Amino acid sequence: MKVVTFGEIMLRLKTPEHLRILQTRDFEASYGGAEANVAVSLAMLEDPVSFVTKVPDNPIGRAAVNEVRHYGVDTSYILKGGSRLGIYYFEKGSNIRPTNVVYDREYSALSLAEASEFHWEEILEEGDIFYFSGVTPAISAHMKTAVLKALQYSRNHGVFVVCDLNYRAKMWSSRQAQTVMKECMQYVDLCIANDEDFEATLGIPAFDGNMRTGIQQMDTYKKGMEEILKQYPGCKSVASVLRNMYTVEDGDWMGIYLKDGKFYESPIHTVHSLEAVGAGDAFAGGLLHGILRNFEPQKTIDFAITASVMKLMIQYDFNIVTEEDILRIMKSSNTNLQR
Amino acid sequence: MKVVTFGEIMLRLKTPEHLRILQTRDFEASYGGAEANVAVSLAMLEDPVSFVTKVPDNPIGRAAVNEVRHYGVDTSYILKGGSRLGIYYFEKGSNIRPTNVVYDREYSALSLAEASEFHWEEILEEGDIFYFSGVTPAISAHMKTAVLKALQYSRNHGVFVVCDLNYRAKMWSSRQAQTVMKECMQYVDLCIANDEDFEATLGIPAFDGNMRTGIQQMDTYKKGMEEILKQYPGCKSVASVLRNMYTVEDGDWMGIYLKDGKFYESPIHTVHSLEAVGAGDAFAGGLLHGILRNFEPQKTIDFAITASVMKLMIQYDFNIVTEEDILRIMKSSNTNLQR
Amino acid sequence: MKVVTFGEIMLRLKTPEHLRILQTRDFEASYGGAEANVAVSLAMLEDPVSFVTKVPDNPIGRAAVNEVRHYGVDTSYILKGGSRLGIYYFEKGSNIRPTNVVYDREYSALSLAEASEFHWEEILEEGDIFYFSGVTPAISAHMKTAVLKALQYSRNHGVFVVCDLNYRAKMWSSRQAQTVMKECMQYVDLCIANDEDFEATLGIPAFDGNMRTGIQQMDTYKKGMEEILKQYPGCKSVASVLRNMYTVEDGDWMGIYLKDGKFYESPIHTVHSLEAVGAGDAFAGGLLHGILRNFEPQKTIDFAITASVMKLMIQYDFNIVTEEDILRIMKSSNTNLQR
Amino acid sequence: MKVVTFGEIMLRLKTPEHLRILQTRDFEASYGGAEANVAVSLAMLEDPVSFVTKVPDNPIGRAAVNEVRHYGVDTSYILKGGSRLGIYYFEKGSNIRPTNVVYDREYSALSLAEASEFHWEEILEEGDIFYFSGVTPAISAHMKTAVLKALQYSRNHGVFVVCDLNYRAKMWSSRQAQTVMKECMQYVDLCIANDEDFEATLGIPAFDGNMRTGIQQMDTYKKGMEEILKQYPGCKSVASVLRNMYTVEDGDWMGIYLKDGKFYESPIHTVHSLEAVGAGDAFAGGLLHGILRNFEPQKTIDFAITASVMKLMIQYDFNIVTEEDILRIMKSSNTNLQR
Amino acid sequence: MKVVTFGEIMLRLKTPEHLRILQTRDFEASYGGAEANVAVSLAMLEDPVSFVTKVPDNPIGRAAVNEVRHYGVDTSYILKGGSRLGIYYFEKGSNIRPTNVVYDREYSALSLAEASEFHWEEILEEGDIFYFSGVTPAISAHMKTAVLKALQYSRNHGVFVVCDLNYRAKMWSSRQAQTVMKECMQYVDLCIANDEDFEATLGIPAFDGNMRTGIQQMDTYKKGMEEILKQYPGCKSVASVLRNMYTVEDGDWMGIYLKDGKFYESPIHTVHSLEAVGAGDAFAGGLLHGILRNFEPQKTIDFAITASVMKLMIQYDFNIVTEEDILRIMKSSNTNLQR
Amino acid sequence: MKVVTFGEIMLRLKTPEHLRILQTRDFEASYGGAEANVAVSLAMLEDPVSFVTKVPDNPIGRAAVNEVRHYGVDTSYILKGGSRLGIYYFEKGSNIRPTNVVYDREYSALSLAEASEFHWEEILEEGDIFYFSGVTPAISAHMKTAVLKALQYSRNHGVFVVCDLNYRAKMWSSRQAQTVMKECMQYVDLCIANDEDFEATLGIPAFDGNMRTGIQQMDTYKKGMEEILKQYPGCKSVASVLRNMYTVEDGDWMGIYLKDGKFYESPIHTVHSLEAVGAGDAFAGGLLHGILRNFEPQKTIDFAITASVMKLMIQYDFNIVTEEDILRIMKSSNTNLQR
Repeated sequence: MKVVTFGEIMLRLKTPEHLRILQTRDFEASYGGAEANVAVSLAMLEDPVSFVTKVPDNPIGRAAVNEVRHYGVDTSYILKGGSRLGIYYFEKGSNIRPTNVVYDREYSALSLAEASEFHWEEILEEGDIFYFSGVTPAISAHMKTAVLKALQYSRNHGVFVVCDLNYRAKMWSSRQAQTVMKECMQYVDLCIANDEDFEATLGIPAFDGNMRTGIQQMDTYKKGMEEILKQYPGCKSVASVLRNMYTVEDGDWMGIYLKDGKFYESPIHTVHSLEAVGAGDAFAGGLLHGILRNFEPQKTIDFAITASVMKLMIQYDFNIVTEEDILRIMKSSNTNLQR
Repeated sequence: MKVVTFGEIMLRLKTPEHLRILQTRDFEASYGGAEANVAVSLAMLEDPVSFVTKVPDNPIGRAAVNEVRHYGVDTSYILKGGSRLGIYYFEKGSNIRPTNVVYDREYSALSLAEASEFHWEEILEEGDIFYFSGVTPAISAHMKTAVLKALQYSRNHGVFVVCDLNYRAKMWSSRQAQTVMKECMQYVDLCIANDEDFEATLGIPAFDGNMRTGIQQMDTYKKGMEEILKQYPGCKSVASVLRNMYTVEDGDWMGIYLKDGKFYESPIHTVHSLEAVGAGDAFAGGLLHGILRNFEPQKTIDFAITASVMKLMIQYDFNIVTEEDILRIMKSSNTNLQR
Repeated sequence: MKVVTFGEIMLRLKTPEHLRILQTRDFEASYGGAEANVAVSLAMLEDPVSFVTKVPDNPIGRAAVNEVRHYGVDTSYILKGGSRLGIYYFEKGSNIRPTNVVYDREYSALSLAEASEFHWEEILEEGDIFYFSGVTPAISAHMKTAVLKALQYSRNHGVFVVCDLNYRAKMWSSRQAQTVMKECMQYVDLCIANDEDFEATLGIPAFDGNMRTGIQQMDTYKKGMEEILKQYPGCKSVASVLRNMYTVEDGDWMGIYLKDGKFYESPIHTVHSLEAVGAGDAFAGGLLHGILRNFEPQKTIDFAITASVMKLMIQYDFNIVTEEDILRIMKSSNTNLQR
Repeated sequence: MKVVTFGEIMLRLKTPEHLRILQTRDFEASYGGAEANVAVSLAMLEDPVSFVTKVPDNPIGRAAVNEVRHYGVDTSYILKGGSRLGIYYFEKGSNIRPTNVVYDREYSALSLAEASEFHWEEILEEGDIFYFSGVTPAISAHMKTAVLKALQYSRNHGVFVVCDLNYRAKMWSSRQAQTVMKECMQYVDLCIANDEDFEATLGIPAFDGNMRTGIQQMDTYKKGMEEILKQYPGCKSVASVLRNMYTVEDGDWMGIYLKDGKFYESPIHTVHSLEAVGAGDAFAGGLLHGILRNFEPQKTIDFAITASVMKLMIQYDFNIVTEEDILRIMKSSNTNLQR
Repeated sequence: MKVVTFGEIMLRLKTPEHLRILQTRDFEASYGGAEANVAVSLAMLEDPVSFVTKVPDNPIGRAAVNEVRHYGVDTSYILKGGSRLGIYYFEKGSNIRPTNVVYDREYSALSLAEASEFHWEEILEEGDIFYFSGVTPAISAHMKTAVLKALQYSRNHGVFVVCDLNYRAKMWSSRQAQTVMKECMQYVDLCIANDEDFEATLGIPAFDGNMRTGIQQMDTYKKGMEEILKQYPGCKSVASVLRNMYTVEDGDWMGIYLKDGKFYESPIHTVHSLEAVGAGDAFAGGLLHGILRNFEPQKTIDFAITASVMKLMIQYDFNIVTEEDILRIMKSSNTNLQR
Repeated sequence: MKVVTFGEIMLRLKTPEHLRILQTRDFEASYGGAEANVAVSLAMLEDPVSFVTKVPDNPIGRAAVNEVRHYGVDTSYILKGGSRLGIYYFEKGSNIRPTNVVYDREYSALSLAEASEFHWEEILEEGDIFYFSGVTPAISAHMKTAVLKALQYSRNHGVFVVCDLNYRAKMWSSRQAQTVMKECMQYVDLCIANDEDFEATLGIPAFDGNMRTGIQQMDTYKKGMEEILKQYPGCKSVASVLRNMYTVEDGDWMGIYLKDGKFYESPIHTVHSLEAVGAGDAFAGGLLHGILRNFEPQKTIDFAITASVMKLMIQYDFNIVTEEDILRIMKSSNTNLQR
């Protein structure tokens, strides 16, 4: 069973520790993006996976490819060309100080690529699952077309489609998102929807915007999840992360999985995070792994949310944890120092 | 409206992370001091401000000036001369381990300067507010004289005077402090008094020394604030920070502002700090900004305490936050990751 | 009064911050091991102490010796020879993510040394206290013999023997440990037993394995401590650390000391740790200091547990705190920033 | 006498040491650009100078402004707006391995600015010298217009114009450059022309492209310099740097200055450089300083070339040397350690 | 055309800059070994290549695999098992101070592996070239057997065999080396022999041990090369690097290639190196690339020696240069800064 | 045979790489001073040695003591007290850019100590050699007295006295130096005199101040050395380092030793240094080692100058080289990479 993910990878320039950009003279360079992150999650879990994107044919683009290949992701379908890799500057917040992201992603190689550059019949030939997030069609009209082409191929060739709605207000308006994502949803088998995604991308109410009380809103979440299945009958399951966030680091996290008409709820994890980036992608990675390995639905959602909260303890964008790491946390009620 | 601040700036040599001085082979070099910190706070808030001091005419002194100018503070009245810049070594504590500061500030350029080197009629000519803290007159007899000269000039020329009592037991005894500060208070328009400052510098009881219960002592604080206005009729307002400190990082913070006979109380902020240095200076900076921008008293104290707790999340001595940053925290009951 | 400690010192290679080994391109190098850590604790407390081990006669071995000597430990009895210094790789966990240690200590100089290389009549000639932990006899059959030789010499020459049972499941089985440690215990005057040590090394039940409720198990702990004194009549006192661990960093810590038929209990310290390594060794160091300085038993156990929780706030393996540092924490109910 | 410089400032992202971009996980961040570099050179030499540019109103843009202000440059005419700051990635070469620069400067705030945003009558009101390099008009058609507007204002108001031809093959073709620069040269009082600049921007032959024998080509250089004065009668002087480069670091450097019909030649400096960036800008800075301070022409060219070779020993883009530093090197035939 | 290389990969722990091990508190971690280095050289040159080894199934072993895969080497035949990865500590010398390497490679996973674990019929099935160096059979008797098995398979299946004699006095005596390498040479098609390799591994005199005059000994080198072909008729070509080393960094380098009875000599490169590790492996990589791409013999040896001297300018063990980088140096007689 | 050295140890704050103080935000902290450096040289060479000084009883002072003890120097006679440790800021030059040192050593613990605090009858009781440099009596009148007391004790008790004249123009004038050093020389058995020391401290001409031609001035040097023996008949031998310095790093170095009426000249070492600090102290250390081990005079001077040039390749103030390291360089005409 092989997974193919499609999206943009960017250079992340993070200040050391919690320095502000105004204070720094160094940036830590790493690479990430929703679909690359999911691919690395799967490679770490020893699932065959290929990441598809376009990067400039210069040292920055090559470095991005190498970092993904480093962890075992197949990079042979990545295109080279265009002039620049998108960048995001990253200032890690602390407690009441929010994390700050400055995007410099316009004019990237992928955003200027044409839909026709991606040959899905070749890329997806050996693929069993196709994964993308709402970020990809938000990049450009061409990328929207490229996603739809991949979805059509998948539908026609029995490739299972997973979509994380993943709304980004900095990239498009809710109105634009709805136009595109409602079309994409016609082809989706498994949908991941969190927080504002329900409303912003599908117009379905589920979450009231209060990040301190996500878990208390479980009922409206569940209604939203059922509504998705109702409106998109091709879609057979939905998974969501519910969170109560008290500070930048402190929160309660749980996952819900609606499958075959039944809801599966994970335990609630109360955590203090180290770096709150990519937790949603780690959730998607864990979910896909459960599906690939035929875990029971309850184990699948437990595994996915544990993968997600483990990511909160891992620096950079990729979730560098093994299946054994995740299973150990799932089993233990304790954590202790091993020496 | 332009602010002038006057005091010492030192080289801070901090060990990396939480290393002890005995463990380190590197020091992070930055520069700070109460009045320089207030000046940078104001420059970050886009208020015109000039910092006045004396530094040695060597690379260390020049670096101190550059760091302040970096953020937009006017440094044209800084004197050059003398042999050394004062130093403070800084070991950041953690939880039950207190932060440790080792002073090496004797014989500094400012401490050996003469009062007559500062020409207030020129420095304060375009000044609307003069700010100093109790640290400055504690440096030397000459600095005490220099402060008094500035105060007299201010009184005579309508410059509004703000004083943070800022008692430092490592620099002078309470008896010495009272002799000097009681004289200075004759000229002060707005007084900032925290914790032990009431008693140590003015002989007015307000705080019992228990750092875990500062907020519970609000009543005695308020009495102390009223007593200040009573004893120093030229002084028309007093502001204080009240804290309950549970560990080096964990505490509850609030501000009180007594103005025109009325007390204004900020909300309580419960925070886990990143670096507990310069929070008092950030409070002063926020307060001055509120006054400069004619905020309502309630908004002024809310802004000042938010600036102060934001500083707890910022490394080094300067409060590198914008007005927009502070207003966003004031408005949000939530903090969330932006990407 | 001079202390001699005997055991292995290893090179610790820690990733920066909380990076995983798979993510790092740098290792922070330091040196540590139970008995070296105790020796440095005592040197920091200004007690004369000698550390005995064997290291390879190459730059790695010499660096290990230098680091111990750095803090004032006598290193004149350390042997040079063999081919390598043992290594442990160290990934610091965070919250729900456990700390991960990868051992590479096989074939070390000490593990391949012969018992006859250590001349105890010379080494212990001026020694008043001999300290070892259960790690040392676990290293090899020769090291077991070397320990027993030292114990016999001590018994015959009035050297007071302190043993921290210190069970390591990665080094030997409980069955192997019991065979050896029961023999060693015939010579021990003061025994330190924590958590699983009771059962694993002496077959005495005391702790049920649940790290979240160590303190609630005080009664069974006390029974275990009494049982030790009963089974080993030469042993006159036992000390234990009891912990409730909630996350990798968060826990409650207390110490119990059974001496002359009476139990002494320390206060409970609720702490959030910075680096949870060597806290047990710091406890042993504090205990030995109390004995060397003839502290009352209550003060001894209070001092030892405070030394132990202070270590949680100190990076690397050694407890770089002075007696003054520990006494200040014992006295204060508050912690506050000094500047 | 005040200087105004106009051009682009970029974020420089340099790998540590000599790492390749493919090897790095960190970038050293600094800011630079020909005209910003000249401005900082002058500020370090205590000459009043203002730098004019446009940067995005985000933390990256603000950081660029702060770095220039840090050293005392007036930044009050810098515009804020647009979406991004240009970037250049920098891999420092070594010996036979060339330094490698990867540009990511397209779509920068300045390149998308309109010429009309710069109000020269205000900016140049107090200016005595206007400095720009050939990089600025190469950025965009609008920037070409902005430069010409500044030149016309200068001509009309007696502002002395200095232009470093500074050809960049990565930015425009020789044909494009000639069209623009020949027009600009109508307004230039002092021209700096190095290496390929003569031919590429003005179509005047002077240098054959062999970097190992620049100094041996002094005669053709001189002819080229005279030809400039002949073709552009408004231009009264020309200065050039001649180099023999043997490796990335090793070379011989000299300056020639043609003024009032006479050539002034500096001594030859044989140097091994630390970081070969910005040496041309440092030369321009030194030259301007000589003019501002009315140095004799011989001293002017000696000072300029010494400033230039000093820059080779200074990291980052700015020439952090004082007048005293430069004069000391000019005087000494020896260099020795001072302690 | 696909290459397979077989040998050990180790963790390299280098002190920062030129620090001695006794001075450092940090190690830079990278991975390398002759055959891994050759594999990465080829991957950088876009030649298909697989590296075969055995590493422990722990994070250190996995990191080694990831680093090689990072650059595009196929790692699917790497075995996992055993207890440790070999280590070498590395102190970079300077001028007259020699570089110092401390080996800690005993008991590594590969050294304790059995020959039968490597299934050459599978590994070499698609291989066209098999590469190993004299380091591999020096590791253990089993590795000697494994190499011979691979050689026999290669001979029987038309796989071209390349051997770098690569004598290591720290691993075996000349007598041991000769016994083994003479047997291996029966199967070698192309032999690389440098410096002492001729005598130490084959008993053929060629080099007198004086590193300052390697190039002057070209005649004896050539005789040694001819003697190899004479003694081992299956071997059809020999390549050698000749060096005059004046300091740790300064030297003259050239390559000689004997093929079809004719000698091809490269130009001499006079260089000052940045990090003199892996230059021999880079030479082998360049040579293999020339053969794979059917370069003329003269171009092959020129390319190989240029690849080798480029490596002297690249940090860590791998030669991170592209074909374009090498060809540019071959063409230029100049090196100059590009900006 | 035990050596005692007496002098000041300072905190050295060095910018990273070659950064200027104006550019840095970090300082590398180490400790050094002429007599501490000599002590560490001897400890590295396994000679018993004690260093005597006074440091403040704070973490900075303790760290200085620990660093010296680290390498095996006896620190039991170091006094604790006073308020500060002297500092020197260090900017490493490059090629034509001179190294820059900024002293901040006034008011140090040693400079304010009283002569009577040093009890020489106890300190020197087991000493065989007493070493000091001209820096120590330059510190204060009290230190001059302390040195003289030590010299008188040495003369009376057969302790061999070694003095490195070590003139520092930043500390005293030549006139002051001569008054003091001429008196000290009455007690000196072996004198080390370099460069300007002859004239500045003893009024004896030897060196004309041209650092490029020190070796060519060998005749006047020899005359100066003979003159010392003539004027100070108690002094039986003199050693000098002669240098031709071409850049900050490049120079020729040799040593001359006049003993029993005969001159011994070392070979000339042509070197490119890494960090030109403490080479004179390393020379003194090598010389003392030769005397302690009864090397022949020729071997003594060869060993001393090799130790000195080795120091040029070692970072920080201490010469971290073993006897084996030095002997290897003395023997080899080659340097090559070992792997």
